Amino acid sequence: MSDQIKYNLTEDQMPKTWYNIQADLPVPMLPPLHPGTGQPIGPEDLAPLFPMALIMQEVTQEREIEIPDPVRDILFQWRPSTMFRARRLEKALDTPAKIYYKYEGVSPAGSHKPNTAIAQAFYNKEEGTKKLTTETGAGQWGSSISLAGAFFGLEVDVYMVKVSYNQKPYRRALMETYGGRCVASPSTETASGRAILEQDPNSTGSLGIAISEAVEMAAQNDDTKYALGSVLSHVLLHQSIVGLEAMKQMEMADDYPDVIVGCAGGGSNLAGITFPFLGKKLREGGNTRFVAVEPANCPSLTRGKYAYDFGDTAHLTPLVKMHTLGNSFVPPGIHAGGLRYHGMAPLLSHVYDQGMMEAKAYHQTECFAAAVEFARAEGIVPAPESSHAVKGAIDEALRCKAEGKSETILFNLSGHGHFDMAAYTDFFAGNLEDRDYDQGCLDASLASLPDVAAE
Amino acid sequence: MSDQIKYNLTEDQMPKTWYNIQADLPVPMLPPLHPGTGQPIGPEDLAPLFPMALIMQEVTQEREIEIPDPVRDILFQWRPSTMFRARRLEKALDTPAKIYYKYEGVSPAGSHKPNTAIAQAFYNKEEGTKKLTTETGAGQWGSSISLAGAFFGLEVDVYMVKVSYNQKPYRRALMETYGGRCVASPSTETASGRAILEQDPNSTGSLGIAISEAVEMAAQNDDTKYALGSVLSHVLLHQSIVGLEAMKQMEMADDYPDVIVGCAGGGSNLAGITFPFLGKKLREGGNTRFVAVEPANCPSLTRGKYAYDFGDTAHLTPLVKMHTLGNSFVPPGIHAGGLRYHGMAPLLSHVYDQGMMEAKAYHQTECFAAAVEFARAEGIVPAPESSHAVKGAIDEALRCKAEGKSETILFNLSGHGHFDMAAYTDFFAGNLEDRDYDQGCLDASLASLPDVAAE
Repeated sequence: MSDQIKYNLTEDQMPKTWYNIQADLPVPMLPPLHPGTGQPIGPEDLAPLFPMALIMQEVTQEREIEIPDPVRDILFQWRPSTMFRARRLEKALDTPAKIYYKYEGVSPAGSHKPNTAIAQAFYNKEEGTKKLTTETGAGQWGSSISLAGAFFGLEVDVYMVKVSYNQKPYRRALMETYGGRCVASPSTETASGRAILEQDPNSTGSLGIAISEAVEMAAQNDDTKYALGSVLSHVLLHQSIVGLEAMKQMEMADDYPDVIVGCAGGGSNLAGITFPFLGKKLREGGNTRFVAVEPANCPSLTRGKYAYDFGDTAHLTPLVKMHTLGNSFVPPGIHAGGLRYHGMAPLLSHVYDQGMMEAKAYHQTECFAAAVEFARAEGIVPAPESSHAVKGAIDEALRCKAEGKSETILFNLSGHGHFDMAAYTDFFAGNLEDRDYDQGCLDASLASLPDVAAE
Repeated sequence: MSDQIKYNLTEDQMPKTWYNIQADLPVPMLPPLHPGTGQPIGPEDLAPLFPMALIMQEVTQEREIEIPDPVRDILFQWRPSTMFRARRLEKALDTPAKIYYKYEGVSPAGSHKPNTAIAQAFYNKEEGTKKLTTETGAGQWGSSISLAGAFFGLEVDVYMVKVSYNQKPYRRALMETYGGRCVASPSTETASGRAILEQDPNSTGSLGIAISEAVEMAAQNDDTKYALGSVLSHVLLHQSIVGLEAMKQMEMADDYPDVIVGCAGGGSNLAGITFPFLGKKLREGGNTRFVAVEPANCPSLTRGKYAYDFGDTAHLTPLVKMHTLGNSFVPPGIHAGGLRYHGMAPLLSHVYDQGMMEAKAYHQTECFAAAVEFARAEGIVPAPESSHAVKGAIDEALRCKAEGKSETILFNLSGHGHFDMAAYTDFFAGNLEDRDYDQGCLDASLASLPDVAAE
């Protein structure tokens, strides 16, 4: 065997606790506010939507949270995930940089999303939930929570953004294979959906609308709770297992990242790989840089405002302080559907606001070109979302080449693209849409941000 | 951690040699014949199509063949593959049987096919080949050889059965992502293709036709060779790594299979998992059963004839003794496209003829139902081809339940179904085609088998 390309951990090395960066933040993040009172919300305000265990994980300041055994037993099916050294890519780029990637596409749903779906389903089952409602854009999350529902015997209703519902029947088929029920949103099943359809019967939907529908259904039924696949702090907590494993794998490689790159939609995969390293930097110092890569046409970090905003369109959620394009922002239709949310995780927004993280925005055609280069060198075809991280990592490697620096780059390859080959087809045919967002739409959306006294 | 579900081997435990069952056969298999002379062909007859290293592997009687280091270096990216204990499926079936499965869907192309594609590309590169031609049905093989071509810097031309070319644009996109050129077959690029199109301009193609086209192009160009994804003995040899790993993993589990199940199209994944165990049985005795599962509408083992036949439609290949439906047999259009070949690997046919293996045929709707049951219990969505093995294994487990026996079942989950969700969509909608083959077509095809003196 020549140069090592794979770093595998044993069963015993799979983390037994999640890492909570809130314990290490020099300045705490701002609390969510009740939209009616403008006052910080308490656990009881969230109880109709989430089981208490998740609500407590949302706010806890403890550094380490135990991963329950039944969750570990299932995660163990595909975890610890492999960290690869991208030697063939390094050679193709002729860079002195060392490129590592953590590969999360080996989960049954093909992405990092099951890391939190399994945990959420477990806590819900424990507290008597019978049904979970959720929204999904591209379908990564919807299929992951359907998988988790199948494992724990929970019904799952997924409100899928209508444009994706129609364009991505295979993701729908995956949800149904796992027993999930997939509903095109806006639907006639909810008041929020009906209100949208009354205004515009041809609405193709948005994540904000789908969230409204899922939240409404959960709020109305005692044995039904809501599950979110990103954004919230407990979701980011569950994804910390990615970075915790990568830290051990970096030790195996006798190396340490100078820069860590991840794609950013809601923020969970980026937080997952970066926060354990960022926490170490906050506690012990160091020079590691952290780079968020977002799509240029839904650029919440690089073009959004750091402000209190709703998570949904119908204003049913609490107000959270985040980098947001405004809850009425409508991104142009792009294939990298998982990165189309108007806001960014509050915890990640806080970290970015504090100057602990950098952000870059790329157009998707350049991301697909990077993904193809990666696939030909490393074999794995990245998901459109993950292609943003690939592009970010390649650019760092090319910078190292230009500067003659042998830096160590780590990125999160959050999912494979096997469900998304239509986008690759479009890319090769030159048909990939790459429109900029509408500046007028963004201005209007930002101008209509809710007026809150706090801060 | 509760009951173990995963058996992983370390890097050091990845086999260093392939296993060749020809060394252990009590009766040797019959040689391929030259279609002109009816005499056994020699290495020089195959030299226009294959590099000499592969030709020698086709006929060698040595038990162990060294896996070259550059091949191991690449295989190591996803190998050794995990063997799982299907505890949740066992529970769902309420069976006393123990079910294990070897999962080959973790390769970059999503199936076992790269195990041989990498080896074939390596030997071709060593011997100066510039371009590989091949055929593909469902696209598993075409994408795997395109991947291997990208790794070794070989051009790859894939003749893809036209009906699949049109129905499965995503597989095509995968080949193109890896830099392969995908051509709808029959094409106007070859004499074989043009002849078919002259007879029937609307021909939707077949594997037999696509093989003719690929073989013709290889035979005409010195620096171009042909690559086959199944059927041939060197392909089965390369897949033995699957069973060799499984033997070590069974030792880890302190268990041994009473029955091993695999799906059978050309036969390579089935041979891959079974032959190392069968060889051990031949050398040392034992009671392990081996079960081939084939589609009821392309049933070469259960309804074909054991006879000399051509591998292709244009009769460009040597004659091989195999279980065949006749090279002019046209199976009805089914989704499990990888199992649509008219013949079965000669080595596997020989083993079956010698009574060392059983065969069963299933309709695909029952296979999809089994695949959905499997997915809800185990998370992984099987490829349509692999769903036949799943169905076979579940039936064995239910037999154990009926008989109150705690047998050990091992099956090969040869690939994931992420590229094939359209078939799942059709299954859920009740639109899955499940036509029987045409008896008249089969009779006519068998009646027109080539007349050879040998045997």
